[in-house]
Amino acid sequence: MTSAPTLDEGLAARLKRDANGLVAAIIQQHDTGEVLMLGWMDDVALHRTLTGGRVTFYSRSRREYWRKGDTSGNVQWVKSAALDCDGDALLITVDQVGPACHTGTRSCFDGRSLDVVTGSRP
Amino acid sequence: MTSAPTLDEGLAARLKRDANGLVAAIIQQHDTGEVLMLGWMDDVALHRTLTGGRVTFYSRSRREYWRKGDTSGNVQWVKSAALDCDGDALLITVDQVGPACHTGTRSCFDGRSLDVVTGSRP
Repeated sequence: MTSAPTLDEGLAARLKRDANGLVAAIIQQHDTGEVLMLGWMDDVALHRTLTGGRVTFYSRSRREYWRKGDTSGNVQWVKSAALDCDGDALLITVDQVGPACHTGTRSCFDGRSLDVVTGSRP
Repeated sequence: MTSAPTLDEGLAARLKRDANGLVAAIIQQHDTGEVLMLGWMDDVALHRTLTGGRVTFYSRSRREYWRKGDTSGNVQWVKSAALDCDGDALLITVDQVGPACHTGTRSCFDGRSLDVVTGSRP
């Protein structure tokens, strides 16, 4: 079976895109549950991600498609994908090769904690 | 010590907000690693989240602040927060009371899987 050249119409109808035509894509390591990064996808990037075995983003700053790992080698192998209840966020689980962050940290959040007042159940 | 009435200036300077003044906030259950939902925060919502012990979002559809659980009881107790390398995404870990999704599922992604071609390391 060959995959369709464009995103499934039913899925496309469920997407709630921002003003730039993008939805947020949360990237999570499939086995550890670690949240690695947040990227952005338009219909084409999502279609490529769902059908190509590797994650493709749309870069807002560079205005181009970007298949994670093509230059860095830090490939994201796709394990699962889900679209949230209101259609504006994707959760993609992956097997991340090497660091996910362009700064070299495993995740884009590592070492970037904010001061917080924690809360607890009464 | 009383908290400052507005967001820390250094942190505010690191935020890369979208056209609506918002950054994406990934909400993750602190102990299981489950990604529960994606919400949106402006400076005020982030400040309230960092200082109030519970997660506050800005609702794009209702155009108002929304402290999760005030009406549903499904409170998100804040455990940690981090801002990513390029300042456009937050990772907030929480203790989620009850379902995170307004539809009643534990996460906003549960039961909403997409068909995907998986990939693997060669």
